Amino acid sequence: MVRLVQKFGGTSVADIDRIRTAAGRVADAVAAGNEVAVVVSAMAGTTDRLVEWTREIAPVHDAREYDVVVSSGEQATVGLMALALQAAGVDARSWLGWQVPILTDDVHGRARIGEIDPDELLRRMAQGQVPVVAGFQGLSAARRITTLGRGGSDTSAVALAAALGADRCDIFTDVDGIYTTDPRIVAKARKLEKVTFEEMLEMASQGARVLQTRSVELAMNHGVELQVLSSFVDAPGTFVVNEDEDVEQQVVSGIAYTRDEAKITIVGVPDRPGIAAGIFGPLAETSINVDLIVQNVSADGQQTDITFTVAQADYDRALGMIEAARDKIGFSRVEGDPEVVKISVIGIGMRSHAGVAQKMFNALAEKGINIQVISTSEIKVSVLLAEEYTELALRALHTAYGLDDGENA
Amino acid sequence: MVRLVQKFGGTSVADIDRIRTAAGRVADAVAAGNEVAVVVSAMAGTTDRLVEWTREIAPVHDAREYDVVVSSGEQATVGLMALALQAAGVDARSWLGWQVPILTDDVHGRARIGEIDPDELLRRMAQGQVPVVAGFQGLSAARRITTLGRGGSDTSAVALAAALGADRCDIFTDVDGIYTTDPRIVAKARKLEKVTFEEMLEMASQGARVLQTRSVELAMNHGVELQVLSSFVDAPGTFVVNEDEDVEQQVVSGIAYTRDEAKITIVGVPDRPGIAAGIFGPLAETSINVDLIVQNVSADGQQTDITFTVAQADYDRALGMIEAARDKIGFSRVEGDPEVVKISVIGIGMRSHAGVAQKMFNALAEKGINIQVISTSEIKVSVLLAEEYTELALRALHTAYGLDDGENA
Repeated sequence: MVRLVQKFGGTSVADIDRIRTAAGRVADAVAAGNEVAVVVSAMAGTTDRLVEWTREIAPVHDAREYDVVVSSGEQATVGLMALALQAAGVDARSWLGWQVPILTDDVHGRARIGEIDPDELLRRMAQGQVPVVAGFQGLSAARRITTLGRGGSDTSAVALAAALGADRCDIFTDVDGIYTTDPRIVAKARKLEKVTFEEMLEMASQGARVLQTRSVELAMNHGVELQVLSSFVDAPGTFVVNEDEDVEQQVVSGIAYTRDEAKITIVGVPDRPGIAAGIFGPLAETSINVDLIVQNVSADGQQTDITFTVAQADYDRALGMIEAARDKIGFSRVEGDPEVVKISVIGIGMRSHAGVAQKMFNALAEKGINIQVISTSEIKVSVLLAEEYTELALRALHTAYGLDDGENA
Repeated sequence: MVRLVQKFGGTSVADIDRIRTAAGRVADAVAAGNEVAVVVSAMAGTTDRLVEWTREIAPVHDAREYDVVVSSGEQATVGLMALALQAAGVDARSWLGWQVPILTDDVHGRARIGEIDPDELLRRMAQGQVPVVAGFQGLSAARRITTLGRGGSDTSAVALAAALGADRCDIFTDVDGIYTTDPRIVAKARKLEKVTFEEMLEMASQGARVLQTRSVELAMNHGVELQVLSSFVDAPGTFVVNEDEDVEQQVVSGIAYTRDEAKITIVGVPDRPGIAAGIFGPLAETSINVDLIVQNVSADGQQTDITFTVAQADYDRALGMIEAARDKIGFSRVEGDPEVVKISVIGIGMRSHAGVAQKMFNALAEKGINIQVISTSEIKVSVLLAEEYTELALRALHTAYGLDDGENA
């Protein structure tokens, strides 16, 4: 007997037929003798519509009421899924966030899960009942409904799996696993059998967008094994595991990219303490997320250049704020380019292998692609390129690292 | 200062513009110095869609999960209404059934409201906050969501008004009041300024369909004054009041009809004790609602005929059950007609006026309309006619009782 949490995303419960298909997967897992708990998202498109309605009423609004509105989508799907399971002969009942309860802090719209008391669910699971738990939602100490932010149902599923002491958390979605890179761009992209939490974290935050980043962190911290798989294809997906379980230990397991980056360079910044804080403090205060930051040592000890990236949506606002602070910071000029792509080569094996970055630089140089900015961490190398090179660079790197389908990585 | 409950039905919150309009009405009432609580239905069409989904999964299903699904519509509208009120400068917050809580029994799908503790809502209303309460839903002792049956938001509003000790409950809908009869059929139909609870009850159950019957009963029992009015027109509607407040005391205040009736006559039934119970018991057990029952005295003391009506949807099933019980009951034959209309003349003044029924019979006779069955109660006279006479009969009766617009009733 294995204890499983099965999570179905919006496309997997997009209509009644798909809910039936998903229920069939749960029924199979139950018939195989497993204890199963289910977590569901809202039907695809529902949350977008609800969010749009709240914006139509007022662009800025009470996040507590926003949460009441947007959490209604999951309420419909838990009931429908419970009915579909019952119709498939499985004992099931729905659980809303406030019924479990899934306690969270009171940061409405992006709440964090605190405690989940698993006793009642475990008792029922032991009797053969499948709890169908609403993803994305929780309950604050003030007994208001909270939501966890977009993609939050992944986090609900992992948190529930941790609380239940589940052996695995299966994330059913519309892709059949994690790929070495985007298969829409690189035809030879390969589905990974296993990937480590650390790699997955880098991939998720680098734009792979299969799993909410926080859910991966949570799984890593609680040692919850994840599987990402398709609800439409009956085949194993990609397992996200601890480093010590990944026997392959690939040097590079994947190449992620994000086009949603804009680059800003501040030229001639005085090289003295507190300057970086003076630049990035105001950006943070207005909720502009800064991704990559590069500052080189100053050649003359007087002045340096600082380059950073922000989401394209924040580009104009960030530029304006930097310009406005020109006198205070005292730089010579600011340059920007919204048309860049960030490409990252990711692999846990990098830690023990030299030459990974060099291979990247060579591969790009061979194609005549200029690298604008380089940033590295323990398990990834990221570069900023002109956006037009995205496809060319991805294919070249995929081949250079031996990731193409048919080759052994 | 007046304490008000304002209830907005599905058509009044059908889209964001209408929610804004409804919020404007609440804001006006607040600005006029009233304490206001709001009850909302789901956006028009939402509940139908949710119900249809549950049926698609399984024609017969767990009513507890049905309630989880269908109650999600009101959850979206309470949040949206609270946001719209805030945008209009009104302090407001949403309340779901389980948050108030609105406690009900556990008859899922058609639960009855038990207790509502008003203290927290009253405290906030005294501070100027408008509670926006989800209609149609409550909480069972087992902490599951319950729903009150179609049209149940009216009942939520009245129950809340009773619990809050409100001076009035305004039911905003897509019609501007209660009419003497259906204005789509009788052009001269007149909006009533006042109608008594008893008359409204007869009208509601006779097919006026403006208010859920149970909400009127509840209002009568708790002395909650109701007003039915349009959310689109800024004008008073119809007040539903206690008999002693209705100074007009019309002999006939309205004429209701329902086409959804089918007539069944059992001919040659032995005239002995227990026969009626033997006929109607099995129908009741299979949830076939019998409306009108007429049994005449038997001419010979041996045999009699019994006529009754059922909803058209139950007609075939009821006929079959009666036929199946032929040997047990021992009647000679059964006749039926699904194409009948029931027309009812309703008025509290009938109690003290003779000749009301006679006027009806004369008016129908003058038009050559044959009366199939007659049934009377204290404040109404109902007749069954062939359905094709519906319009002719309604217009003739409307004129005969002096209800036509421009005349003084």
